[in-house]
Amino acid sequence: MTNTEFDVLTIGNAIVDVIAKVDETFVAREKLVKGSMNLIDEPRAEELYSHMGPTTETSGGSAGNTAAGVASFGGKAAYFGKVRDDQLGTIFAHDMKAIGVHFATARASEGPATARSFILVTPDGERTMNTYLGACVNLSPADVDAKVVAAAKVTYMEGYLYDKPEAKAAFREAAKIARASGRLTSITLSDSFCVERHRADWLDLIKSSIDIVFANESEITSLYKTQNFDGAATAIARDCPLAILTRSEHGSVVVQGQDRIVVPAFPVAKMVDATGAGDLFAAGFLFGHTHAKPLRQCAALGSLAAAEVISHIGPRPEVNLAKLAQMNGLI
Amino acid sequence: MTNTEFDVLTIGNAIVDVIAKVDETFVAREKLVKGSMNLIDEPRAEELYSHMGPTTETSGGSAGNTAAGVASFGGKAAYFGKVRDDQLGTIFAHDMKAIGVHFATARASEGPATARSFILVTPDGERTMNTYLGACVNLSPADVDAKVVAAAKVTYMEGYLYDKPEAKAAFREAAKIARASGRLTSITLSDSFCVERHRADWLDLIKSSIDIVFANESEITSLYKTQNFDGAATAIARDCPLAILTRSEHGSVVVQGQDRIVVPAFPVAKMVDATGAGDLFAAGFLFGHTHAKPLRQCAALGSLAAAEVISHIGPRPEVNLAKLAQMNGLI
Repeated sequence: MTNTEFDVLTIGNAIVDVIAKVDETFVAREKLVKGSMNLIDEPRAEELYSHMGPTTETSGGSAGNTAAGVASFGGKAAYFGKVRDDQLGTIFAHDMKAIGVHFATARASEGPATARSFILVTPDGERTMNTYLGACVNLSPADVDAKVVAAAKVTYMEGYLYDKPEAKAAFREAAKIARASGRLTSITLSDSFCVERHRADWLDLIKSSIDIVFANESEITSLYKTQNFDGAATAIARDCPLAILTRSEHGSVVVQGQDRIVVPAFPVAKMVDATGAGDLFAAGFLFGHTHAKPLRQCAALGSLAAAEVISHIGPRPEVNLAKLAQMNGLI
Repeated sequence: MTNTEFDVLTIGNAIVDVIAKVDETFVAREKLVKGSMNLIDEPRAEELYSHMGPTTETSGGSAGNTAAGVASFGGKAAYFGKVRDDQLGTIFAHDMKAIGVHFATARASEGPATARSFILVTPDGERTMNTYLGACVNLSPADVDAKVVAAAKVTYMEGYLYDKPEAKAAFREAAKIARASGRLTSITLSDSFCVERHRADWLDLIKSSIDIVFANESEITSLYKTQNFDGAATAIARDCPLAILTRSEHGSVVVQGQDRIVVPAFPVAKMVDATGAGDLFAAGFLFGHTHAKPLRQCAALGSLAAAEVISHIGPRPEVNLAKLAQMNGLI
């Protein structure tokens, strides 16, 4: 087996977030489902942007946020994702390196611009995402650096990758290499609509190739086409050795065979912006898991990181998560 | 006289802010004077950026922030400033239009990229700015749309424009047109080091062509080479019909001939980021002044806007200033 250089490798759509606070009527007027993630094309991206008020830009992308979170906990993180060689791509790459994530995916020198997600944050802290994938669609198996995969304890991938054929192929290639190297594989189901688009594929994938599944309540119930959370938990326990099911303010449930570990959410004074909650939960859990912490502690680290990220605008931690975890007696 | 279409036209360096929270040791290690504004070249910009942690990007620029503030109060604002036709230029232009500022300066299609200011925010809320002027250096008299100047009650300009010959020429051209149209002219002295660079020029300019001067304590004492605030106030009263001198948490003094109106600062729970304080003070004052409010009320509106902007990261208002002023009984 290769030497371990990385605790967690994450693979996903490399996206710059374009964030605006909006009121409820804006979401309604744009005919959006609050809380959803919508894929949009370039004309729609321009149209929506022209309707938005002043924005703030910050690096995002689900798996990118997770890698940043692992690094903030002091873990060794790597990331694969595709940006273009434009200004937003430079910002994305800077922010990864600045937080200590190994990020060396070749930037596209032609084709669509670096991806943007137009994120509308309503007064209740909920976010509605509208993503123009841009350069992300060019992530391909050629971008899967086998040495990095083989050197990472866990390879964690976004379900969103399945929305584009080349990115899906990259996902499968990475999973294959990780397994062949005796490493763990992990997926986040990303979004309930994404689950609908890929249900059959994912059920096969999870059974054959995935060690750890992350999903929220609507995603896991969508995967098994049930309204019943406990039923979905029983089903995922049959299909995968370890699953972590998040339930927003109701905390999370770690599912391992017959065992269920219920962990409360970490209290927050006010949810300012839900963006990144699931991503940072996964970061905390995977940091703990790759440092041989008990599952309950892993989930508590996830809850802590999720609480930090929803207490401010933006999808990545604003404080050092290692220090925060120490202050809370979690590491 | 042309019809009035704009309350306030502002002219300045069009800049995207690249913001990072840093500790005091970072500022020391980079050999920077805390609270200063430094002009940097592109290699230094790249070096500094490579040392910075993850950043947030948002539109800024002193006069740009003032225009945004006037618009947020419900005033009619216009802006002249030069960006390139790149992604950051698109962001800058979007944010101006999105808040309701008329911004039609032609974007450069060649030459340096859109300007960036690398802003280091220390835990005390103070900011240290490092500005790469990029495309701003190409703002020239050709960008001064005489119709807009003639249609604005006040033309307000950054002292920073004097750092580049073409921008300085644009400043002087705009002042000339405003005066010839029977409009008011205004300058902010921008920064005490900027005052040092242009002291003689500015003393001539103010005496000959400026109706309203904005300056903070270090700028006005630098202009008159004195340690004495009252002495500087007396001097500016001789040279200019109206001056507003800001003193951070000690409030502001409106100077008009023999009269001095002392207005307290608006209380803030915690200064999170000082960026934009002076710019937003000017916005509130000029909004009031162009709506025929008494000078004391104008300064109170300035204090309110400054308090809002220093209570969060970023140089532009996060709330609607018209509503905020109504809630505080100021309009």
